[in-house]
Amino acid sequence: MNTPASSTPTHPLDEALALAPQAGDGASAARVFAGAPHAAYDNMVGPFGGASAAQMLQAVLLHPDRLGDPVALTINFAAAVSNAPFQIVAEPARTNRSTQHWVMRMTQADAQGAEHTVLTATAVTAVRRSTWSATDAPAPEAPAPEQIPRAPHSGMVRWIERYDMRPLAGAFPAQWDGQEADSLSRMWVRDEPPRPLDFASLTALSDAFFPRIWRRRATPTPIGTVSMTVYFHVDAAGLAAVGTGHLQAQASAQVFYNGFFDQSGLLWGPAGQLLATTHQIVYYKE
Amino acid sequence: MNTPASSTPTHPLDEALALAPQAGDGASAARVFAGAPHAAYDNMVGPFGGASAAQMLQAVLLHPDRLGDPVALTINFAAAVSNAPFQIVAEPARTNRSTQHWVMRMTQADAQGAEHTVLTATAVTAVRRSTWSATDAPAPEAPAPEQIPRAPHSGMVRWIERYDMRPLAGAFPAQWDGQEADSLSRMWVRDEPPRPLDFASLTALSDAFFPRIWRRRATPTPIGTVSMTVYFHVDAAGLAAVGTGHLQAQASAQVFYNGFFDQSGLLWGPAGQLLATTHQIVYYKE
Repeated sequence: MNTPASSTPTHPLDEALALAPQAGDGASAARVFAGAPHAAYDNMVGPFGGASAAQMLQAVLLHPDRLGDPVALTINFAAAVSNAPFQIVAEPARTNRSTQHWVMRMTQADAQGAEHTVLTATAVTAVRRSTWSATDAPAPEAPAPEQIPRAPHSGMVRWIERYDMRPLAGAFPAQWDGQEADSLSRMWVRDEPPRPLDFASLTALSDAFFPRIWRRRATPTPIGTVSMTVYFHVDAAGLAAVGTGHLQAQASAQVFYNGFFDQSGLLWGPAGQLLATTHQIVYYKE
Repeated sequence: MNTPASSTPTHPLDEALALAPQAGDGASAARVFAGAPHAAYDNMVGPFGGASAAQMLQAVLLHPDRLGDPVALTINFAAAVSNAPFQIVAEPARTNRSTQHWVMRMTQADAQGAEHTVLTATAVTAVRRSTWSATDAPAPEAPAPEQIPRAPHSGMVRWIERYDMRPLAGAFPAQWDGQEADSLSRMWVRDEPPRPLDFASLTALSDAFFPRIWRRRATPTPIGTVSMTVYFHVDAAGLAAVGTGHLQAQASAQVFYNGFFDQSGLLWGPAGQLLATTHQIVYYKE
């Protein structure tokens, strides 16, 4: 029993993930959930994209017909999400014996009450079996998180405060001097305050890198993620083994071409297990 | 004018891409296209996934409201596509000033005539502007395609005949001896017969690698791609510069975990320009 006197405060991510199931029409397996961006994950305009992605996955996780755990997730940032209520529709488009394919959409109402699409998404969930396994991308050697100071996080956009980030390589540019560098960054990262890892938080963490083009060019460049994919390589036992430990996270770009660059990321658990691989394509202005 | 006497034969990929627009209900911007898998791209069961992915993108390319060229495409292989007619619905879910977000779905009818989802997909198209650009993943040095013999292609599944593949590294296992190797392969590849590169063929080429787990384990393992993403880094001028030249293509895996492994791929043009980056998550049985 939680009572106001004895309960610990709810984590802001859990508040963001508390979507409300809406009454359905009964005609299809699609379910509608209502929610809103959380002020603790504010970005420059609207919410941090990782928090929105986590909310989209949450609609699948809350769906009563869900089979298995997330294996793949693709989120398309179709328009700026505003700090206003939204609806997410999650539909199991195909259910097989051990895999299930999902289609999701987030809409927000305009001033006239008409709903407009702001995010589209697809996901795959699956019941995993124990098989031969191997990791060919081991975690790089790194000093322990306690040995690295937390990166500056106050006076910036608010969602940065929600992550304990400890740069290992390729830190945020110290000065915007246009000095070209490589695009690689590595860091220790976890939720702040600490929160046991789950699929929703791992999704948000997959979007917690600063834009690769800022590192590559050391030039302030307007950007916006257009599409993000996360592949999950972990099950419930693996998540439990991480708990509130820091993840080692790495991101780099391969190409910047006429307004869009890519980003490839890897997230390892404290013991070096590869938990997720992630990819983005990001718009940039000039 | 094409006449039987003077025309060159139509390329099988063009035949596969000749989707037929269906009369719409006029109530939404979604359009329906009818088509079928092409026998020239037969796989072990049903069609080669890359050909199906190209057909899904083609529905966007044929849509009268399309804005710009493909930037991102994600295809989810929800169920086995059968060698039977299909319908693709392509909907522009959001149209912005210079980007457009698409949702697509392929359905096939069962014996009772009910339509079932076999593929889901999303795509982003955009009008590109000329900006600062850079490639951080240059094409590896390689001997010219003419110096490398074409890989064996007869007596295998039929779609292999549709590609001129010239292995540069990590060739198909010569024997299934269970000898673990790395998962990296590189090859020259182009359509066979040659065909000028376009976004649809580049999509299909992104799926033309043999499964990484076969290279990694040298053990015959049942597999099936679950989800594939392609990011395009080329415009019409860049496609024209490739023409019918060979692409250098590379693929590798990062992790194999309890039934699913990932694949990361890169495709460069003959002059070394990075045209596409691509990612998959693939089911494997044991």
